[in-house]
Amino acid sequence: MRALITCSYNGTHFLGSQTQTETKNTIFGQIEYIFNELNITSKPQPSGRTDKGVHASGQTFHIDLPEFWNDLKKLKRILNEMLPNSIKILSIKEVDAEFHARYSAKSRVYRYLIKTNESNPFEDDFISFYTDADFKSIQKNISLFIGEHDFREFMKTGSEINSTTREIYKAYAYKKDDLIVLNFEANGFLRSQIRLMVGALLNLDATQIKEQLDCKKQYKIKPATPNGLYLAKIKY
Amino acid sequence: MRALITCSYNGTHFLGSQTQTETKNTIFGQIEYIFNELNITSKPQPSGRTDKGVHASGQTFHIDLPEFWNDLKKLKRILNEMLPNSIKILSIKEVDAEFHARYSAKSRVYRYLIKTNESNPFEDDFISFYTDADFKSIQKNISLFIGEHDFREFMKTGSEINSTTREIYKAYAYKKDDLIVLNFEANGFLRSQIRLMVGALLNLDATQIKEQLDCKKQYKIKPATPNGLYLAKIKY
Repeated sequence: MRALITCSYNGTHFLGSQTQTETKNTIFGQIEYIFNELNITSKPQPSGRTDKGVHASGQTFHIDLPEFWNDLKKLKRILNEMLPNSIKILSIKEVDAEFHARYSAKSRVYRYLIKTNESNPFEDDFISFYTDADFKSIQKNISLFIGEHDFREFMKTGSEINSTTREIYKAYAYKKDDLIVLNFEANGFLRSQIRLMVGALLNLDATQIKEQLDCKKQYKIKPATPNGLYLAKIKY
Repeated sequence: MRALITCSYNGTHFLGSQTQTETKNTIFGQIEYIFNELNITSKPQPSGRTDKGVHASGQTFHIDLPEFWNDLKKLKRILNEMLPNSIKILSIKEVDAEFHARYSAKSRVYRYLIKTNESNPFEDDFISFYTDADFKSIQKNISLFIGEHDFREFMKTGSEINSTTREIYKAYAYKKDDLIVLNFEANGFLRSQIRLMVGALLNLDATQIKEQLDCKKQYKIKPATPNGLYLAKIKY
């Protein structure tokens, strides 16, 4: 049976999401290890990767379960007992054999959390503190990213990709108590794209962002810190 | 000038508070390093130590500042700029030359946070999740610890100490939203004493706790996890 599994995780303790041969200390390194312990040897296929320090409130992956695992509630309970508390299985449901967590995804939603207060040691792993972040200008300029663009000036190199064009369906910012929340939904994102877009919103004006989006000029932008970023939802 | 400095820290990222020769990755390893960068070579003297994974909302230490550091507001600002966000200087004030952060302390206050909900990856570094914790029994039995006792059955061995007798001035539990908060105030605590007392409150009944406090019987208790523990205040 092919199962679609939704999970959340605290990225603080892991070297990113992707399995690595050198270390088990990645999100999917841990998940794969626990599945192996349960004699489930098919490899979990994530919807995509997240970087070191990036969190997920709704990451997904699919996996092929052997026949003896038909009690999905029980599997969820056992997985949560065995996984570290920093990774949590939220739901497991049966899907068609053709379903693919990555290729069947219609869109991906990320959130980025900013506070302008003084930093706080107990929130620092989860929120980015930018005391001079200007909510009004972020709220105005974030819409510049909506639509289909060549995002090659908004990516970290290092991954093999066919195209640097992505379509952003939604991009908006709002305030919730003393948090500034940035919300991005797209068919896909390039490596570090969101952190570079947030870095641009924090440091460039509208004209500069447009120039960079049109690949006319390349401003040096520091990516926003990973600890404010959450993979929120994969839509199918 | 001798200064008393109050700080808070997120213990998640550090190998405990005490400086170590092998690594700089301890709370006071970091603090000492930053003071050295500022040409302040006197060693910070903490009120006491906290273990790996234990947090502080109000740890204190004293240090002797060279004459050129008389602007304490500026020093605080610079320290906070240089320290990692997981350590925060809350206040710096001048004290007498005889003052000692450890020996002048009248009492130490610790808090321990428990939730009985399902664990949550984003709170797991800061709260202990014990789904079967019984608030009524914790609230009743915690008062057994009040007074002067020989706590030798409530300590991890490993530190050199003259006496295992400590006086607990206050010990009480209350609810705050869905949190169970345990509060302990004493002249001092032995190594892992609070985590072992919390472990006893979670696993033993009143008779058993009394037997262990009277050193009549030794029950095997697992110390409660460090991530729920906070050094809250040092009173002088």
